[in-house]
Amino acid sequence: MKIKELAELIEGQVEGSGDIDIKGLSGIDKAKSGDLTFAIDEDRLAGAEKSNASCILTNRTIRKSSKALIRVTNPKLSFLIIYNTFNAPKDRESFIHPMATVSDSVTMGKNVWIGPNVSIEEGVKIGDHVIIESNSSIKKNCKIGSFCRIYPNVTLYDNTELQKNVTLHSGAVIGSDGFGYVKDKGKIYKFPQLGKVIIEDDVEIGANTTIDRGSLSDTVIGAGSKIDNLCQIAHNVKIGKNGLIAAQCGISGGTIIGDNVTMGGKVGIADNLMIGDDVTMGAASVVIGSIKKGSVVWGYPARSIAHTKRQMAILSRLTKNSRKANSLGKR
Amino acid sequence: MKIKELAELIEGQVEGSGDIDIKGLSGIDKAKSGDLTFAIDEDRLAGAEKSNASCILTNRTIRKSSKALIRVTNPKLSFLIIYNTFNAPKDRESFIHPMATVSDSVTMGKNVWIGPNVSIEEGVKIGDHVIIESNSSIKKNCKIGSFCRIYPNVTLYDNTELQKNVTLHSGAVIGSDGFGYVKDKGKIYKFPQLGKVIIEDDVEIGANTTIDRGSLSDTVIGAGSKIDNLCQIAHNVKIGKNGLIAAQCGISGGTIIGDNVTMGGKVGIADNLMIGDDVTMGAASVVIGSIKKGSVVWGYPARSIAHTKRQMAILSRLTKNSRKANSLGKR
Amino acid sequence: MKIKELAELIEGQVEGSGDIDIKGLSGIDKAKSGDLTFAIDEDRLAGAEKSNASCILTNRTIRKSSKALIRVTNPKLSFLIIYNTFNAPKDRESFIHPMATVSDSVTMGKNVWIGPNVSIEEGVKIGDHVIIESNSSIKKNCKIGSFCRIYPNVTLYDNTELQKNVTLHSGAVIGSDGFGYVKDKGKIYKFPQLGKVIIEDDVEIGANTTIDRGSLSDTVIGAGSKIDNLCQIAHNVKIGKNGLIAAQCGISGGTIIGDNVTMGGKVGIADNLMIGDDVTMGAASVVIGSIKKGSVVWGYPARSIAHTKRQMAILSRLTKNSRKANSLGKR
Repeated sequence: MKIKELAELIEGQVEGSGDIDIKGLSGIDKAKSGDLTFAIDEDRLAGAEKSNASCILTNRTIRKSSKALIRVTNPKLSFLIIYNTFNAPKDRESFIHPMATVSDSVTMGKNVWIGPNVSIEEGVKIGDHVIIESNSSIKKNCKIGSFCRIYPNVTLYDNTELQKNVTLHSGAVIGSDGFGYVKDKGKIYKFPQLGKVIIEDDVEIGANTTIDRGSLSDTVIGAGSKIDNLCQIAHNVKIGKNGLIAAQCGISGGTIIGDNVTMGGKVGIADNLMIGDDVTMGAASVVIGSIKKGSVVWGYPARSIAHTKRQMAILSRLTKNSRKANSLGKR
Repeated sequence: MKIKELAELIEGQVEGSGDIDIKGLSGIDKAKSGDLTFAIDEDRLAGAEKSNASCILTNRTIRKSSKALIRVTNPKLSFLIIYNTFNAPKDRESFIHPMATVSDSVTMGKNVWIGPNVSIEEGVKIGDHVIIESNSSIKKNCKIGSFCRIYPNVTLYDNTELQKNVTLHSGAVIGSDGFGYVKDKGKIYKFPQLGKVIIEDDVEIGANTTIDRGSLSDTVIGAGSKIDNLCQIAHNVKIGKNGLIAAQCGISGGTIIGDNVTMGGKVGIADNLMIGDDVTMGAASVVIGSIKKGSVVWGYPARSIAHTKRQMAILSRLTKNSRKANSLGKR
Repeated sequence: MKIKELAELIEGQVEGSGDIDIKGLSGIDKAKSGDLTFAIDEDRLAGAEKSNASCILTNRTIRKSSKALIRVTNPKLSFLIIYNTFNAPKDRESFIHPMATVSDSVTMGKNVWIGPNVSIEEGVKIGDHVIIESNSSIKKNCKIGSFCRIYPNVTLYDNTELQKNVTLHSGAVIGSDGFGYVKDKGKIYKFPQLGKVIIEDDVEIGANTTIDRGSLSDTVIGAGSKIDNLCQIAHNVKIGKNGLIAAQCGISGGTIIGDNVTMGGKVGIADNLMIGDDVTMGAASVVIGSIKKGSVVWGYPARSIAHTKRQMAILSRLTKNSRKANSLGKR
């Protein structure tokens, strides 16, 4: 495809020859002749010019270049639009591997692909264009919506519900029992975990992440949310739409999280809190109270990020002064 | 079963009609007509009254209600007793799925159920009423006591010992090599990991939790302890009886933990410490020293919870005062 | 083997009878008659003397003992050298389990052992003496070097490259998609994850650890590095040679880590930082800035360990003084 044709696709403006053929996409480090790459600032533009790339996707205001440019408002977004245009997932033919174990009572839509050693138990309902890869286990009465993709070694417990276009990476465990116990006279009794997990449309769940079923209500992951690797979502948690939750976060039981919430890595949230819409939590925040809509928090415990930074500055000053005082004292 | 019959089961006191038939149990949100639910306080009682539930399990002292009540000392405990009475796990018939791979040298008790794609290696001994679900791998010479339940995609390394009624959730890895290395002249040598993991009676282990085998002694999880998802228990750790360890905790090598210890989520404990009986560690505590029996600790590093809260209050005051001082200064 | 023969192997000096036969190795707690054990200090020497061990490996300067000793410079290192001498991994015969699913296009070296329910997809290349255990999934075009060992329930995504003598513990997921999204007008778009994971020689990866593929460049784990359980290595991270990374660490996208770096458990590192060679990070450090070669850091946020310890001491003093002031005030 020619540079000028790609530019049309993303409403970009060509600078230099628009007639060069583009054969692939790549990052600056790996760009070969015929490749399109992208540069979001001056430094990266210089790097891209040194590479063998034939065309650079960049922003509207940056300097001119010796190489052909396509100028757009958001080069990273345009890059992924071009990528997705040429790499739309191919439809797989209907296929059930002979080493898969699929109960007779399972229902399936069109173009479902099931790999070796997959186990699918009684009553599972599977939509169209679903892919379930090797060594995954789907327990009883799960519902798996159209265009879901399940990577190898995933486990879904009974009654788990995946809506449309949900992606589960390897080792994810969805629907395990919540951590609910009642202590009485030194003995520990397990509380019934009767709810299920509902994962709405367009959610992506990272490798080895665990999401527990609800105890009396359900655990819900809202449409469009993305959860990274090794996160723990406890029973009865509800996460709103379009959340972004980085790796190793943990959300304790019963906490309700609004829409468009962003969590850095390793954030921990206590149980039964309310986190408003549009909240941002910095990495490693330890959240022990509810948070109002739109807040940006950080720290141990999490406070407004301005408060936490000021506190750290004061502590640093105190520490340095004490060192000075000590060394003056010694003299 | 009638309300008055259920009340007898849990030594409860009926208020209102005891003759209504109860067909199911559920949380307040999902209660249908014919269901029993429970309410531990005024707010929840009001909620339960608005639901379709036919009977509410509640405490001895709360106000009267328009719905039938059963009054007990601990409604949550009574609810689970009723639940467990009607949902005792059913005995499964002996069954080995044709897609399972079981070594000839494996010995098995009565009513053992083994799912598809399970691999059980040489010398494994399995007790009565054991369930091992799909895609789990049991390596050589493991011992699995009666009434153990292993969910899909679990791995047991060689010689792992599960005593009676142990539950392992999906993705748990028990008996992997400990992180033991010796550095010499810039090279890293692996130290032998010769011990095993022993998990005593009535333990439950969460999804994707990892427990390493001992290096020279064994790693031991005491009877009745419950460990949540994504925890790391390092080599040679000993955990006492009836511990409650929430998600994403990590216990470093050689640490000894007493009985009845409670850990909030994300607690980290350094290596070779002694944690006394009845200790409680707040969520995200960073424990770098041994802790005496009965202590309640929190913080980074963990101190008595009173100390940590006072310290946080002082820091907050300092930070606010400095802001005031700054803004006065500007004026 | 006689004590004097073992002593020669490790350049040790025998004290007491060198003619006793040694039949096994063990820790002090489990030592039987005929066993060799080791003691690195006076306390442990006393313990070893009370055990049934027939010989104690100890240092050059410790007191004499009633039992036979072998004195060496580093008893722990010598112990593992003896262990490894007698427990060299045995070569397995070539074997593909009939329940494994191996694509016709896979190429394999000599003495490759493949367990039940392993799935190996198109184009995978496997070297000599490789072991792949039950229920592991190897996706398309992976390269697995000689002497690699893959425990059960591991997943390798497409194009993952293991060089020589790499060990992957159970539940590890290598090559999953990085957490890369672009937000535009309230929608979240997935950024292409086109790179791969390269794991160099002699690396060991712990149970349930996740390593994401690069987005535009590759994720690289340097030769000789050891990564413990439940760690998260994000896309485009490069880790140098001989790193030691304890459990539950998380390294965010694009961070470059030098050689010989040591991380305690639960360390978190922000994205796109540079961590120099020979850096040590204390457990639970929250690293938000680049770190110079040779530094030792700790804390939230991580600072030089001396700074963090001084700061904690000052805070403790402030807190205690305020308690004194309060109690004086009350009087």
